[in-house]
Amino acid sequence: MENSPIDKLINDISKLPGLGRRSAQRIALYLLKNKEKNLTSLIESLKNSYSKIDECSLCGNIDMQNPCGICSNQKRDKSTICILEDVSDLWTFEKIGFFKGHYHVLGGSLSALNGIGTNDLNFKKLFQRIDENNVKEIILALSTTMEGQTTSFVIADKLEKFEGLNVTRLAQGIPMGGEVHYLDENTLNTAFQSRKKIS
Amino acid sequence: MENSPIDKLINDISKLPGLGRRSAQRIALYLLKNKEKNLTSLIESLKNSYSKIDECSLCGNIDMQNPCGICSNQKRDKSTICILEDVSDLWTFEKIGFFKGHYHVLGGSLSALNGIGTNDLNFKKLFQRIDENNVKEIILALSTTMEGQTTSFVIADKLEKFEGLNVTRLAQGIPMGGEVHYLDENTLNTAFQSRKKIS
Repeated sequence: MENSPIDKLINDISKLPGLGRRSAQRIALYLLKNKEKNLTSLIESLKNSYSKIDECSLCGNIDMQNPCGICSNQKRDKSTICILEDVSDLWTFEKIGFFKGHYHVLGGSLSALNGIGTNDLNFKKLFQRIDENNVKEIILALSTTMEGQTTSFVIADKLEKFEGLNVTRLAQGIPMGGEVHYLDENTLNTAFQSRKKIS
Repeated sequence: MENSPIDKLINDISKLPGLGRRSAQRIALYLLKNKEKNLTSLIESLKNSYSKIDECSLCGNIDMQNPCGICSNQKRDKSTICILEDVSDLWTFEKIGFFKGHYHVLGGSLSALNGIGTNDLNFKKLFQRIDENNVKEIILALSTTMEGQTTSFVIADKLEKFEGLNVTRLAQGIPMGGEVHYLDENTLNTAFQSRKKIS
């Protein structure tokens, strides 16, 4: 326990998101117990990822090519950009597969608490892309948290200068499978105000 | 998502104990987002551990030297061996620091369900050590689970052939801070049967 390399390993693992010291210790022991099999293969996999995977300089996606497979796919609609907080959101969209436009990953949302300002997010490149690609619609698909909403407002505000650009956001309301008596006040209120005519 | 190296990385991470696919994805994204800082340092730390940390050929502990610091410490009592399931148990013992003898890490406990038999555990070396070091006491500090108890019985049985060897196990009873009305039947029964005279 007092030995520095073991301690350093546990420390480094516990820095990974979602892991505490106890789970880091468990993982470190698992790796060290069968070094040849477990540790070597993980090192190989990480090294491989380091050399092969890169961030897309256009949209912020993570891929084996730069620009990424989505940005360089000529079949996708360049005139629509969906703005997301994170690469994992992009993966979710692609898994469902209904969206055929381009993405733009911000890399987070504005947060005074966490010290994330407009300069920390991928804003500048977004404006460039709108300018260069004759973009017609920007879809804001950010979380409906405090931070996500603030970010949406700030982006919408900054996009006002682009004439003829449609800025939309995801519909808000009752989630599918949601039971009305379990909904929070805000959701119910929003869903009620944005009620739609049954045609 | 469909790209093999990213997928492989997530897969490899999700194989670590305690991690599911969702947390593996989160960790992979964290590593890839800032490759130079996060990924490189983790690779370095793992490589370092690979070359510097080894399993002790005597007791099964993990250390930077072989035999480990405990086995090669002349001040510790060679005639007492405490038998443990796992290296993390050894760390817990050492953290508290009351035990000054040697350890023997089994690397698990007997389990028919998981297919772990006597040949999978570090038994053979234990008998060797008892023979060579004139051991006087073996302390069984295994879990009080079904598997741990079975393992204790099997070891105690196998140790009968060593004449003059004391085989002991940890006391069983109410844990410190335990409330009687929350205790399970087994614990309460054991604690009652092994009651001690207040002197």
